[in-house]
Amino acid sequence: MRYDGREPQQLRPVHIEIDYLKHPEGSVLISVGDTKVICSASIEDKVPPFMRNQGKGWITAEYSMLPRATDQRNIRESSKGKITGRTMEIQRLIGRALRAVVNLEATGERTVWIDCDVIQADGGTRTASITGAFVAMTLAFHKLYKNKKIKTLPINDFLAATSVGILKDGQVVVDLNYVEDSAAHVDMNVVMTGNGEFVELQGTGEEATFSYSQLQELLKGAQEGLLELFDYQKQVLGEEISDIITKAKQR
Amino acid sequence: MRYDGREPQQLRPVHIEIDYLKHPEGSVLISVGDTKVICSASIEDKVPPFMRNQGKGWITAEYSMLPRATDQRNIRESSKGKITGRTMEIQRLIGRALRAVVNLEATGERTVWIDCDVIQADGGTRTASITGAFVAMTLAFHKLYKNKKIKTLPINDFLAATSVGILKDGQVVVDLNYVEDSAAHVDMNVVMTGNGEFVELQGTGEEATFSYSQLQELLKGAQEGLLELFDYQKQVLGEEISDIITKAKQR
Amino acid sequence: MRYDGREPQQLRPVHIEIDYLKHPEGSVLISVGDTKVICSASIEDKVPPFMRNQGKGWITAEYSMLPRATDQRNIRESSKGKITGRTMEIQRLIGRALRAVVNLEATGERTVWIDCDVIQADGGTRTASITGAFVAMTLAFHKLYKNKKIKTLPINDFLAATSVGILKDGQVVVDLNYVEDSAAHVDMNVVMTGNGEFVELQGTGEEATFSYSQLQELLKGAQEGLLELFDYQKQVLGEEISDIITKAKQR
Amino acid sequence: MRYDGREPQQLRPVHIEIDYLKHPEGSVLISVGDTKVICSASIEDKVPPFMRNQGKGWITAEYSMLPRATDQRNIRESSKGKITGRTMEIQRLIGRALRAVVNLEATGERTVWIDCDVIQADGGTRTASITGAFVAMTLAFHKLYKNKKIKTLPINDFLAATSVGILKDGQVVVDLNYVEDSAAHVDMNVVMTGNGEFVELQGTGEEATFSYSQLQELLKGAQEGLLELFDYQKQVLGEEISDIITKAKQR
Amino acid sequence: MRYDGREPQQLRPVHIEIDYLKHPEGSVLISVGDTKVICSASIEDKVPPFMRNQGKGWITAEYSMLPRATDQRNIRESSKGKITGRTMEIQRLIGRALRAVVNLEATGERTVWIDCDVIQADGGTRTASITGAFVAMTLAFHKLYKNKKIKTLPINDFLAATSVGILKDGQVVVDLNYVEDSAAHVDMNVVMTGNGEFVELQGTGEEATFSYSQLQELLKGAQEGLLELFDYQKQVLGEEISDIITKAKQR
Amino acid sequence: MRYDGREPQQLRPVHIEIDYLKHPEGSVLISVGDTKVICSASIEDKVPPFMRNQGKGWITAEYSMLPRATDQRNIRESSKGKITGRTMEIQRLIGRALRAVVNLEATGERTVWIDCDVIQADGGTRTASITGAFVAMTLAFHKLYKNKKIKTLPINDFLAATSVGILKDGQVVVDLNYVEDSAAHVDMNVVMTGNGEFVELQGTGEEATFSYSQLQELLKGAQEGLLELFDYQKQVLGEEISDIITKAKQR
Repeated sequence: MRYDGREPQQLRPVHIEIDYLKHPEGSVLISVGDTKVICSASIEDKVPPFMRNQGKGWITAEYSMLPRATDQRNIRESSKGKITGRTMEIQRLIGRALRAVVNLEATGERTVWIDCDVIQADGGTRTASITGAFVAMTLAFHKLYKNKKIKTLPINDFLAATSVGILKDGQVVVDLNYVEDSAAHVDMNVVMTGNGEFVELQGTGEEATFSYSQLQELLKGAQEGLLELFDYQKQVLGEEISDIITKAKQR
Repeated sequence: MRYDGREPQQLRPVHIEIDYLKHPEGSVLISVGDTKVICSASIEDKVPPFMRNQGKGWITAEYSMLPRATDQRNIRESSKGKITGRTMEIQRLIGRALRAVVNLEATGERTVWIDCDVIQADGGTRTASITGAFVAMTLAFHKLYKNKKIKTLPINDFLAATSVGILKDGQVVVDLNYVEDSAAHVDMNVVMTGNGEFVELQGTGEEATFSYSQLQELLKGAQEGLLELFDYQKQVLGEEISDIITKAKQR
Repeated sequence: MRYDGREPQQLRPVHIEIDYLKHPEGSVLISVGDTKVICSASIEDKVPPFMRNQGKGWITAEYSMLPRATDQRNIRESSKGKITGRTMEIQRLIGRALRAVVNLEATGERTVWIDCDVIQADGGTRTASITGAFVAMTLAFHKLYKNKKIKTLPINDFLAATSVGILKDGQVVVDLNYVEDSAAHVDMNVVMTGNGEFVELQGTGEEATFSYSQLQELLKGAQEGLLELFDYQKQVLGEEISDIITKAKQR
Repeated sequence: MRYDGREPQQLRPVHIEIDYLKHPEGSVLISVGDTKVICSASIEDKVPPFMRNQGKGWITAEYSMLPRATDQRNIRESSKGKITGRTMEIQRLIGRALRAVVNLEATGERTVWIDCDVIQADGGTRTASITGAFVAMTLAFHKLYKNKKIKTLPINDFLAATSVGILKDGQVVVDLNYVEDSAAHVDMNVVMTGNGEFVELQGTGEEATFSYSQLQELLKGAQEGLLELFDYQKQVLGEEISDIITKAKQR
Repeated sequence: MRYDGREPQQLRPVHIEIDYLKHPEGSVLISVGDTKVICSASIEDKVPPFMRNQGKGWITAEYSMLPRATDQRNIRESSKGKITGRTMEIQRLIGRALRAVVNLEATGERTVWIDCDVIQADGGTRTASITGAFVAMTLAFHKLYKNKKIKTLPINDFLAATSVGILKDGQVVVDLNYVEDSAAHVDMNVVMTGNGEFVELQGTGEEATFSYSQLQELLKGAQEGLLELFDYQKQVLGEEISDIITKAKQR
Repeated sequence: MRYDGREPQQLRPVHIEIDYLKHPEGSVLISVGDTKVICSASIEDKVPPFMRNQGKGWITAEYSMLPRATDQRNIRESSKGKITGRTMEIQRLIGRALRAVVNLEATGERTVWIDCDVIQADGGTRTASITGAFVAMTLAFHKLYKNKKIKTLPINDFLAATSVGILKDGQVVVDLNYVEDSAAHVDMNVVMTGNGEFVELQGTGEEATFSYSQLQELLKGAQEGLLELFDYQKQVLGEEISDIITKAKQR
């Protein structure tokens, strides 16, 4: 049994509130245990200079934490005047992950700005951001589609992420909270599509290493957790949207 | 009748959810119409260098908006690498306003960090921030007081803020939303204490001016609105805390 | 009697030297007691991007202090690599105030850059900047007018500013110098037009508050001081220019 | 056969020139094909503030490219005034990877600064940096050890990195050069210790995904390539140092 | 005859107003033709970290221009967030030049901050800054000396600077104004001590070169001009201070 | 005899390896004793905005040091977020010097970006950079010329630089290494063209001065050293290119 009473393979309770904000084309508030992230998707009718006149779209992500999302207050990155390496790494990851399931040929020359703002942090903020941002982005594209600005919903598959890790006692666990994450020997983030393909795999031993057989165990744990997340995303997005995506992935 | 159906003197619906976040010593989510701000108060057991060894406390505030709090997405200040003049002005105002009702001699050498993060903006974000931050700060001090780290609740009086303005047609209105604010000739923010004293008065004619008699009308409107806000703050903070503050202000 | 021998309602000696610099279209050196500010107005034949093709002009202001304008040397903002909140607040105030008396429809697509550089500081640098910048700007527009680049002098009225405050002993005084300003309970800056309308009113209690009747007393003091400043501006600008402005304000 | 004539499993020629620079405690010039990186290790006799008085050491890495290391000249990060997300990600990776094989309890309160400066880039600069930096760091620690400043060589195992990827035609290849890397569907960086444990695994599908069986193939390719790199590192470091490391890893 | 009617060897009129500002320990307003610079010297009772506990003093200089000191308005360096290369070069030059005539062993652990702020520019701002800053610094040290904080006036000799150049027609001229400077083939700044020794010599051909014999002619011109400046500095500083310096240089 | 066994007039061994890098149009690795600099010249087919549509080219230079080029590790300028004054001064000098021997009318609207990256520093990095950059730039222009993109090789003359100085014992020496440079009373950098004309002369006494006769001795020393450098440049560039330059300078 784990620190907070969970089984090794047990995810924390997940909740996604859709259309959380008034202004963005798509937005959610996702909670994964005590981790809470506002994800919004804003559509801009142009692409960055390096992509112009190619008839394709672009997706870019930004990530931030409220200063007191954490136990100790953090200095704002706007006050420091620069973004930390951790933030950059996370926002690059979110953008890359989302682009893997979007048909950028079918979006028109538009940029989707994904904003993931962590309101409260308790481990797994980057994976919660991806899981939530996928829903926000899908809602935004669906609005474009309903308004006949695009001909298809340009989403190829579902997308979700979770963390797995090896605790100090060697136990492999899924969806680490902050206390587990801080003490884990190995921490791995897995981003997967609905049909079980990897999009991103980042495994890190901080002052530790892991073997091939441990890797296999980690991936198995991640996969089981992700199946639950895909089911929940379908439920949240509703039958109509989910059906379109399911059909797209069968192509 | 106003744009959104309100009477000239009518505030928008106000709601304050206390203890909104898990980590900060005090926190609220305040909604004023569609304007929503997370206000948190974090206690740090030291003061900035210029105040050390004076036995006094300090209160400082930061203010920010999520990029898509507004109708058009704004570039993050952390991405720009600098804070805009507007943000600086607002966070200086919030800090100054709160310090006016706190007995800094009675807090010990502690800093209260106020964070006001606008989740959704529809006009009046700075006044909502002050009204909400007062509650978050009071909750944080009350926690210190309950834990016997300070001997008294160092709050001298209630504190709230609202806006008043003169619309293009000359009408004086209270608590302007974004549409009204953008088109107003004169915009005034009034910060007041529970016993009716001014803490801050900022009246601005953008490419317009206002007369002494208009000023009197504006102040009267503000005062009426603020009385409602003080009543609501009392209700939210509860009888015990409100009584302590009421007694303090009678001294 | 005050610290420096003045009556409560007495301004410090004011002097404005016009055409102080060789290059700017308009420039003055204004002294208010020991406070000295070089104000220059530079005309640029274009407007910022957000205003293009509207046929209107724009006025923007920058404010700075020499490092040793003050008793203790300040680090240059260029060395720090960023502008302080105080500077931003002041330069936004100056720009807003000047725009209130200019007919931006009549300037053509031009930007007036106002630069207020404090050579020596002894309190009231922002109000001296406004009073001086109005003269510099008027001289610059008059040069355009004389050169037939604009058809009218696009100034609607005179504009000046002063400070009023409540000292620790409760006395209401006008035009505070640095020693008074540092110790005042309440500090208010009043920007007014020649016909007695308010442009900007900023009253602040730093760890203090003020009542409605004190506000009335402060405004009365400010108004008397400002009448003297308008008289002096007329004298400095000369009969020809003053007459044009006086006629404009009667419209 | 690949673009440059290599077999799928074939590494590019690797060369490490040790003691390349005069000043650093350890330094190498590593070439992996046309990719050339100067790696230096500088010992500082103190640790960052957050690690003081714990009796432990720290390793931190910085990474940069000469502006014309690449086909198109890049703007210097010092001219831009900020470090890109890519650079941050890479330098965090290098530091983390090296810390995994160092016994930080045995280094004393010292910081090792690793500098990886890419002189010429042709794909795989981050993996070449890790492989080279391990040698530079080992040389630096060995100098400390020889000078009796530390009692043991605090290296637990060899450490090297390489890339593997899936090309557009589905072929799995090792050690991608720039042309291959730009066009690959999947790119994975693998950092491994001499005894075959993973330190870091970063697999990314850019607008693509990969299956579990492809992952297995990728890891097999990486492992074979890394065995060659460990052999070469041993040869470069010489028998004496290699023996100490080999004994350490058997513990 | 030159553009402005001067002989080739003729300096522009020079005027130095001492004690120009109220707050600094030493200050002047120097005019060289239409070039006007406020030079102030501020004494701080500590030295930078790298000089602590050596019993010596330090002199550092900063240089800036008001935005409209020039014909075209320049963007403030504080707005840009960084200092240009030109400014850095000039402030390093001023500091170095002044340190050459100060006995830093005799100042105590003090820093002299020299601020040169160009109010109006018409060529030769860096040489005017040096000539003026020498006087401001001497006044500041003399104040320390009078107040018995230092035992001697730590100035070894007079110090002044001027420019010489070769115009397009080959003519060698002294003290170039802006029009001459912009068109000159060769521009040389010479900083010299009262007894005729060079402190700094910076000769530059912008898209042009100069021969050894031209160099000799340039140096001769500079020397004659500088003799006039030393005479004027003596007159401005007065007999008492000048005598102390004259005696110091004879040692 | 000098610290490292050289005669006063003796240069350190100089070596220039041409075409050192794969990507730039021209590149060298220059060694002057233990000072090693990679100089590259990149051709861009456009000029900066202020030079557009004049049919002329531009040359700009950047200079940097690897953090551990020196005995003590330096913080990267990219980490500091700004470029030091020393770096700015040097890169301005390199650009200016190169422009003096290039016929910018004959290059077309192209920018040559010169990058001088110091790999190892032992004094004289700026003069080595100029001597090496001249060769890299010439190679780059020669490539354009060979490819018939320009009609002539737009180089008017050879260009090299060296340092001369006065040591503490009064000895005049050429090509100072770091130990000599740190202790020298006077340090002078001389940039000269192949026909013996000065391009740039920067002599500085750090807390010291120098007389006219010392200046003459310094210049004589520099000139002798530079003749050797021109001979070596010719040898490195080869007969064909050297002949073109020699003919150009005779015009």
